[in-house]
Amino acid sequence: MKLYDMGVAPNPRRVRIFLAEKGIEVEREEIDIPSGGNLSPAFLAVNSRGVVPTLVLDDGTVIDESMAICRYFEVLHPAPSLFGRTAIEQATIESWQRRCEFDGMFAVAGIFRNRSPNFAMRAMPGNNPPLAQSAELAARGEVLTAHFLDRLEERLLASPFVAGDTYSVADITALVTVDFARWVKIRVPATNTATTAWYAAVSARPSATA
Amino acid sequence: MKLYDMGVAPNPRRVRIFLAEKGIEVEREEIDIPSGGNLSPAFLAVNSRGVVPTLVLDDGTVIDESMAICRYFEVLHPAPSLFGRTAIEQATIESWQRRCEFDGMFAVAGIFRNRSPNFAMRAMPGNNPPLAQSAELAARGEVLTAHFLDRLEERLLASPFVAGDTYSVADITALVTVDFARWVKIRVPATNTATTAWYAAVSARPSATA
Repeated sequence: MKLYDMGVAPNPRRVRIFLAEKGIEVEREEIDIPSGGNLSPAFLAVNSRGVVPTLVLDDGTVIDESMAICRYFEVLHPAPSLFGRTAIEQATIESWQRRCEFDGMFAVAGIFRNRSPNFAMRAMPGNNPPLAQSAELAARGEVLTAHFLDRLEERLLASPFVAGDTYSVADITALVTVDFARWVKIRVPATNTATTAWYAAVSARPSATA
Repeated sequence: MKLYDMGVAPNPRRVRIFLAEKGIEVEREEIDIPSGGNLSPAFLAVNSRGVVPTLVLDDGTVIDESMAICRYFEVLHPAPSLFGRTAIEQATIESWQRRCEFDGMFAVAGIFRNRSPNFAMRAMPGNNPPLAQSAELAARGEVLTAHFLDRLEERLLASPFVAGDTYSVADITALVTVDFARWVKIRVPATNTATTAWYAAVSARPSATA
């Protein structure tokens, strides 16, 4: 199998952290998104959707979407569990993972993709039609990101990890979102002490450097 | 347990179709989103995020996000499987579910939420800060929805169901997206014959009326 990856991009990092937590090694090939490597004929022949990360299995099956790739490895390597075991654990982790993804990661992406000079006319990821950047959407992203960080603080005041008592894929998405926010010059407010303590803990895990 | 629901909204419908496919009955309470029922003090006391559907378990656990709610029931009632069983099945279904959700459903929602008079200053779902509607984002949604419908047709020319040979949660998201698109006056092009045939088949399942 091969994982198409990009070292500095947030979504591929989610998969690498996940694999590191499980101690899984996968052959990787670097794709450079800003220069259009994900839209090259060679990569579009692998995945016509043009997104990274993409996992290609030995039988030719193509799996994209970070969380779908992670689920593949969760089934094959269930320990340590990062998506939960019982029905309540699985549902709670999925709920928090999606809250962090939609309310946080997508908000930051909305700022970055609509402002970065690298993505003029590529305001949405992957092999989409040309799309102009939107200052309105970037401004909306600022409001949503600030709101997300406040909600994350509320949660972490009540819970040691994002989805409960143990580290999960929801922490991976939240960690990557907080680091991604630095790309658009947004930091966790110093008054958000629970988030700051959680961030220090999850960043200190060896997986965080993956 | 209780499911907070809204009869005509697309995300709650995904959960109802899922439950109907599995033959599960759950007590439901209707929340009217356009008139602000999801932002009432009574509902925010249930789920401060202010989104519907929300499932509250007998032990007080609150699960929102349609796909998280569906996963709760998938674990407890694994047959018929709608998220897949093997690692490849689970990853493939999750990949297609997310493609339909992000490329299709979110694109349609971007049109609807940024144009509907019911959602002036509520351009994002749930208990977010007031957000003005964006004509730029609605216009972007038109481009993305058309692109999604073309990609869905490509897929359904090659596969009887969205994620492969059997009906799955990816079909539920795609079906609800196609019906949601009618709210913003977008229909599957008549030339998309594979999608039209698939749509007739999945709409004829008893679950589609749930």
